[in-house]
Amino acid sequence: MQKVGKQTIKFDNPPTILETASIVGPKEAQGPLSKYFDMLLEDEFWGEKTWEKAESKIIKEAVNMVITKSGLSADSIDYCFAGDLLNQCISSSFGLRELNIPYFGIFGACSTFVEGMILSSILAEGKAANNVLFAASSHFCSAEKQFRFPLELGNQRPPTSQWTVTGAGSAIISATGSGPYVTYATPGKIVDKGIKDANNMGAAMAPAAVDTLLTHFKDTGRNPSYYDAIISGDLGYIGKEIVIEMLQTYGYKVKSNYNDCGVLIFDKEKQDTHSGGSGCACCGTVFSGYLFNQMKAKKYKKILLIATGALTNATTSQQGESIPGIAHAAAIEI
Amino acid sequence: MQKVGKQTIKFDNPPTILETASIVGPKEAQGPLSKYFDMLLEDEFWGEKTWEKAESKIIKEAVNMVITKSGLSADSIDYCFAGDLLNQCISSSFGLRELNIPYFGIFGACSTFVEGMILSSILAEGKAANNVLFAASSHFCSAEKQFRFPLELGNQRPPTSQWTVTGAGSAIISATGSGPYVTYATPGKIVDKGIKDANNMGAAMAPAAVDTLLTHFKDTGRNPSYYDAIISGDLGYIGKEIVIEMLQTYGYKVKSNYNDCGVLIFDKEKQDTHSGGSGCACCGTVFSGYLFNQMKAKKYKKILLIATGALTNATTSQQGESIPGIAHAAAIEI
Repeated sequence: MQKVGKQTIKFDNPPTILETASIVGPKEAQGPLSKYFDMLLEDEFWGEKTWEKAESKIIKEAVNMVITKSGLSADSIDYCFAGDLLNQCISSSFGLRELNIPYFGIFGACSTFVEGMILSSILAEGKAANNVLFAASSHFCSAEKQFRFPLELGNQRPPTSQWTVTGAGSAIISATGSGPYVTYATPGKIVDKGIKDANNMGAAMAPAAVDTLLTHFKDTGRNPSYYDAIISGDLGYIGKEIVIEMLQTYGYKVKSNYNDCGVLIFDKEKQDTHSGGSGCACCGTVFSGYLFNQMKAKKYKKILLIATGALTNATTSQQGESIPGIAHAAAIEI
Repeated sequence: MQKVGKQTIKFDNPPTILETASIVGPKEAQGPLSKYFDMLLEDEFWGEKTWEKAESKIIKEAVNMVITKSGLSADSIDYCFAGDLLNQCISSSFGLRELNIPYFGIFGACSTFVEGMILSSILAEGKAANNVLFAASSHFCSAEKQFRFPLELGNQRPPTSQWTVTGAGSAIISATGSGPYVTYATPGKIVDKGIKDANNMGAAMAPAAVDTLLTHFKDTGRNPSYYDAIISGDLGYIGKEIVIEMLQTYGYKVKSNYNDCGVLIFDKEKQDTHSGGSGCACCGTVFSGYLFNQMKAKKYKKILLIATGALTNATTSQQGESIPGIAHAAAIEI
């Protein structure tokens, strides 16, 4: 492991993404990626009394599932990283409290999944661990309740708004293995361009994605065309267009090989999801379900996964603050 | 770096804690450790309009201060870790948004400071970075408002309650240096013994501290007496007594060399702080102010710092849940 350029880590003995697991809610189950997810829920409660408890159960079972799928015993997983959007990350801490694996709580808003991937890779290559698990969750109902309005009010959603993905993605990183490998990581800086519209997270996060992408290309000497696919976490339709435009002003063309998990996970026309999916589980489930599958099938050999997060909450919006964004990128190759 | 025993990381080339900085509020400024802190605030607002903005300013200035004290340029700090107790960790993300250093958000409740120390040490020894900064903050007024009652209500505080420390601690870990060194880290598991009293965090967190301490002693082969001081983060008077009693049932005597940052930071009799201090800044400022100073002066040569966190919030309490605890330990030696 070494630092290259301004802020990128190069993994000289790249750790392997051993296995992934994904669970999604009923709306995601009706979307175009449905067949790639491990489990589709029929309702938003999954037998629990509250949305928060349901979200905890989702991440808990996604974690149990990845352990089962990996064939590893829980004992052989050294550490885990997890986070979510709920206040004090309660989905993760309550969901994982019976796991009995040393736990690092992380918070990168919707960038949490790739933050976990990067830190897990650092522990694995650094010989602090052989196997590290990471996971992230979100839930449409608990997120709306907490960040915007109670669902019971039936508020209208503006066209720029995104639909928080209900679900969880989880994965295990191993120090040794046959890939897909995490080869580079570019953790992002906080970027705040003054966007204040809490219903336009794509616009708030896009400049952070551009900052991390430009840095990644410079630090690694790679061009966008090196990757079969560059996939952002949850910029949605609006944020995606902003990234394409902004990169063009810096001389980078990404249109043909660039997409966004929030664009991929829903059918915009049929599902009425406006600017697309969002939430920690957007990147988490699309990677753990769809993208990892495509890499195992060798349809994608080199991808750059860049998860984006809006480091904001209802209080800061009420206090007139703008929305700081962040984006963490990981290069994954077979 | 290598894993030893069940869950401990041994740093073979131990990273150095290059420098620390601490800022505290007016109540902490009247406490017994007053002279060790870098900056004492005269009021809880520090010129800001809200407590949240004040807390952001406190962590921002604690981070700027440790960079200045270290003599490093901000450019030479590769990555930073930060977290706090506010919803979505807004104190850290807003406080550090102009810092221009790649940012990993972490959430370990009041264990955040040592979680940051451990992850920073892993990056530094793993050669992912030369210099890594970490910081944590808390604020009495913003914490009471968010977790319990608005201060304006003047609610009575039960004797088991603790007083959230207003302040921030920050530190820089370097891959090379002359110490104090981080020699071992024992990240903790989530431990939930069913305590439901949100006004008795010490009791909720103590079992996690005991779990991590027992594991640390077994993994390293060290006895409690190896350390000049074992210092927990914010168990307060009640949690401290529980730890002493529980360890005794396992055959470990720690009474003479064990103390707690929450016990140290306030004068219980004169300051009416009931069971003692708490919050991310409790461990953060007592280490960055008092303990680091004692190590530099060689009064302490070997300490075990174990920060404790309650991974809970108001919603989970309202939904009848118990309080999961966690405790992360780092051995620091000169």
